[in-house]
Amino acid sequence: MPRPSEDELIATYFAPLAGPGAFGLRDDAAILAQRPGQDLVVTTDMLTAGVHFFADDPPGAIARKALRVNLSDLAAKGAEPRGFLLGLALPGDWTTHWLAGFAQGLGEDAAAYNCPLLGGDTVKTLGPLAISITAIGTVPEQKIVLRQGVAADDLLYVTGTIGDAALGLQLRAGAAQDREWTKCVSQADAAYLAGRYLLPQPRLCLREALHAHAHAAMDISDGLAGDLAKILDLTGMTAEVMAADVPLSKAARKLVRHAPSLLETIFTGGDDYELLCAVPPSQSAAFEARAIAAGLPVHPIGTAKPGHMPPTFKDPDGQNLVFAQPSFRHF
Amino acid sequence: MPRPSEDELIATYFAPLAGPGAFGLRDDAAILAQRPGQDLVVTTDMLTAGVHFFADDPPGAIARKALRVNLSDLAAKGAEPRGFLLGLALPGDWTTHWLAGFAQGLGEDAAAYNCPLLGGDTVKTLGPLAISITAIGTVPEQKIVLRQGVAADDLLYVTGTIGDAALGLQLRAGAAQDREWTKCVSQADAAYLAGRYLLPQPRLCLREALHAHAHAAMDISDGLAGDLAKILDLTGMTAEVMAADVPLSKAARKLVRHAPSLLETIFTGGDDYELLCAVPPSQSAAFEARAIAAGLPVHPIGTAKPGHMPPTFKDPDGQNLVFAQPSFRHF
Repeated sequence: MPRPSEDELIATYFAPLAGPGAFGLRDDAAILAQRPGQDLVVTTDMLTAGVHFFADDPPGAIARKALRVNLSDLAAKGAEPRGFLLGLALPGDWTTHWLAGFAQGLGEDAAAYNCPLLGGDTVKTLGPLAISITAIGTVPEQKIVLRQGVAADDLLYVTGTIGDAALGLQLRAGAAQDREWTKCVSQADAAYLAGRYLLPQPRLCLREALHAHAHAAMDISDGLAGDLAKILDLTGMTAEVMAADVPLSKAARKLVRHAPSLLETIFTGGDDYELLCAVPPSQSAAFEARAIAAGLPVHPIGTAKPGHMPPTFKDPDGQNLVFAQPSFRHF
Repeated sequence: MPRPSEDELIATYFAPLAGPGAFGLRDDAAILAQRPGQDLVVTTDMLTAGVHFFADDPPGAIARKALRVNLSDLAAKGAEPRGFLLGLALPGDWTTHWLAGFAQGLGEDAAAYNCPLLGGDTVKTLGPLAISITAIGTVPEQKIVLRQGVAADDLLYVTGTIGDAALGLQLRAGAAQDREWTKCVSQADAAYLAGRYLLPQPRLCLREALHAHAHAAMDISDGLAGDLAKILDLTGMTAEVMAADVPLSKAARKLVRHAPSLLETIFTGGDDYELLCAVPPSQSAAFEARAIAAGLPVHPIGTAKPGHMPPTFKDPDGQNLVFAQPSFRHF
């Protein structure tokens, strides 16, 4: 069967995902009507096979992850998704079967998050698959939540649980390498952790709680330790985090009991896509209540204090945890 | 010298290009204030080494091309650039020297086109360099110029000259293969044609002329023959183009005299980034005058007529030119 041309490919796989201003993806560009009283929020993330996902991951999951990591950035700013643009560089061996799966996963998430496709470009690459997504959201004027803004005495919160995705990734790599601790993981736990790596959950439901109560927020993509250091550093803050206060999933807790050294993976491993935010103490009760009402529990992990040292993580004996590399390095 | 981390790299090379809402590229996302009475226009283009440019092209030129092909899409819609986002997947052998050149070229064009960097993502790829740019522009409400809209009797115009970039590319490939016709090209002509391939000229100056007079427009990126077929097909139109009416540069004309078969390259080769637009006859004089006032001559190449056949190109003897492949195929 001959490969479809770019136009056929767009018409078949991507036009069904197109939003109202996208002209069925048959134009050079798309239009996005403005909403009075709202600012636009834009973000972009690129993912390449073998670095950000496994080339043999299900194509629908690859597509959804590529969209969701962008939606996670919008979530961290308190923004509501409005649409996205897709750059897709296909390697020589792509198949229409693969592309159909990719488009289906993408379409499901575009619908679920009310974030239609506004435009795209599908090209050839001589290397592995590369995906670039730009997401566009809106936020009420003056309501954007920035990274910069943590104040002294702010409570530092995280959503969900930390470290699952990094454990899921290690498990995948570790299983291949037959490491001891991977043998103690139940099938259900392994599936849970693998799923957390494969499919992040953008925490968009926290939008109004952030607008109302947060001084600052970011999404945790490069590991809690490094990302916490980043958000604190912007306003000359530091913090002491009791490791036991960091929310872990049941699966992660079991693993740490088997192999305590995995705490480093949990705090530095990346791919959480949970939110980290700073809330003044006077607002903390209201913030927590609103988060619970939104269906997403939040957990305080420490308090911001003036200081220029990176935050410390303490084990139950009060000893500092020392990390070989506090943050995921992109290079 | 150790490689900079992603944060250092952004702070050194890309933060100086950041627009006012981009928070020095230290946040998850950027903000873009809305302009009352304007719609947003968004477009994205991806370029990969060995497909859309040569890996050993000057890094500044690669960056400028990646931005300009997006600005060309905005130009075709009558939009004014407001900013862009950059996805950059760097191969293993990148150097800070290369990146400095890339950022410098990008910064020069961001300044020249008043189109600041709003955000980006720099990642690793196991393959060749890939660049994805999303450009954002604005257009007065109801003023966007679409591809769809060519009406019967509209004059079909192109800007500038056609085929130079495709000849520049052939020359580069042809010189390597020692083809006969490449020997007849003067050094000045070769440099001109190579430059037309390396560095497209987004025709943003035609914005107001398009708003005022055009029924439809697109940029010519995949070859005049194929792109003309696309814009006509959207409203069930066709056209007869006299090859002699298509504006060619002096360098292109000289080459065609040596090797008439190059007409196919000129009409189908792609990478022109000139504009193709449809203007009703009653507006043509005003459109031409406005284009001249904007410093960009436009040339009528035919008239739209109802019909479902692709447009034909006729040589001076009235014979149809037959093209093996009317449009650049992306796959």
